Amino acid sequence: MSDTHDNDAYRQQMARKKRLIDARVQKADRDQGVLLVNTGNGKGKSSAGFGVIARALGHDMQVGVVQFIKGAFSTGEETFFRRIPGVEYHVMGEGFTWETQDRERDLAAARQAWQVAARMLGDERYQVVLLDELNIVLNKELLPLDEVLGVLNRRPAMQHVVITGRHAPQALIDLADTVTWMKMEKHAFKAGIRAQKGMEL
Amino acid sequence: MSDTHDNDAYRQQMARKKRLIDARVQKADRDQGVLLVNTGNGKGKSSAGFGVIARALGHDMQVGVVQFIKGAFSTGEETFFRRIPGVEYHVMGEGFTWETQDRERDLAAARQAWQVAARMLGDERYQVVLLDELNIVLNKELLPLDEVLGVLNRRPAMQHVVITGRHAPQALIDLADTVTWMKMEKHAFKAGIRAQKGMEL
Repeated sequence: MSDTHDNDAYRQQMARKKRLIDARVQKADRDQGVLLVNTGNGKGKSSAGFGVIARALGHDMQVGVVQFIKGAFSTGEETFFRRIPGVEYHVMGEGFTWETQDRERDLAAARQAWQVAARMLGDERYQVVLLDELNIVLNKELLPLDEVLGVLNRRPAMQHVVITGRHAPQALIDLADTVTWMKMEKHAFKAGIRAQKGMEL
Repeated sequence: MSDTHDNDAYRQQMARKKRLIDARVQKADRDQGVLLVNTGNGKGKSSAGFGVIARALGHDMQVGVVQFIKGAFSTGEETFFRRIPGVEYHVMGEGFTWETQDRERDLAAARQAWQVAARMLGDERYQVVLLDELNIVLNKELLPLDEVLGVLNRRPAMQHVVITGRHAPQALIDLADTVTWMKMEKHAFKAGIRAQKGMEL
């Protein structure tokens, strides 16, 4: 073991880290509903949204999920969360937009999904709301961005919202409290491994 | 609606996207256990790991979870997944390393957690294994990297593994099939909002 890793140095290093973290924790003293946006080209945007849902359910919170894009992918989480009490789960749309290739149908599906989402965002009984792949819908201008931002702004003060998908609009990023950019460094798919049950499906 | 968004252009654009995706899907024709690494400084690394667990459970797969760092945070997911059949859940360690400030105790805790993990990684009945915050343990050299990489390399061919935490070692990134770098663009904590139940807790 090198000198930099002896127990004294370790203790000093960790004690310093603890002081810094304690000071930051003390400064963060407000409670409010958080708007979390997961965007970027990497794997994990939706998975992280569903992880937050699991965390909230561990606290027996009431959660709502609207999946804006129903694809060939992502069937596992739907099956799983539909079994769990405390989750209201809606899946909208008729497949990826590149499957339908029909803008009028996509507009109608987006509108229908948004009506469900807007109802949840107006009701404080939903403590956490996941709007999965909403960013894609906004990027394709299938919903008016101003209307979506307005409803998010007027939502109950303590309601948490998670929005996922590539191409989050800048105005949504500006409104959000926490934003993670998920960058693909590597993807198994590109190495010829097809989508695996439990990982992508 | 602008010209670029009329229905014909939309159809052509989506049809092209579909051709590209179909071609890529056709090229990805192998099945194998995937090693997924979530690293970076942003929120979502562990959440995404737990989202994958939810997805796998939706397919009634058998999963194992080892949390290498038990902190003040992240209590919701433990409560939640301990309720679910099909999950074997271990929490190791005695708090963040900057809480203990004792390298010997951290080394012992890491070794104990790794023994549980290594048992799972040697048993094909565990179809998905989540090693939460293992990267932090590796970065602090609390476990020998070579030993960990060796066990990962020899694991059952179809077993999926998810490893999370900041500072993933380069050799682990090299071994991984899918790597997401989660970049913090914004965090509510920095704006003075304390950790919220269901989001961080």
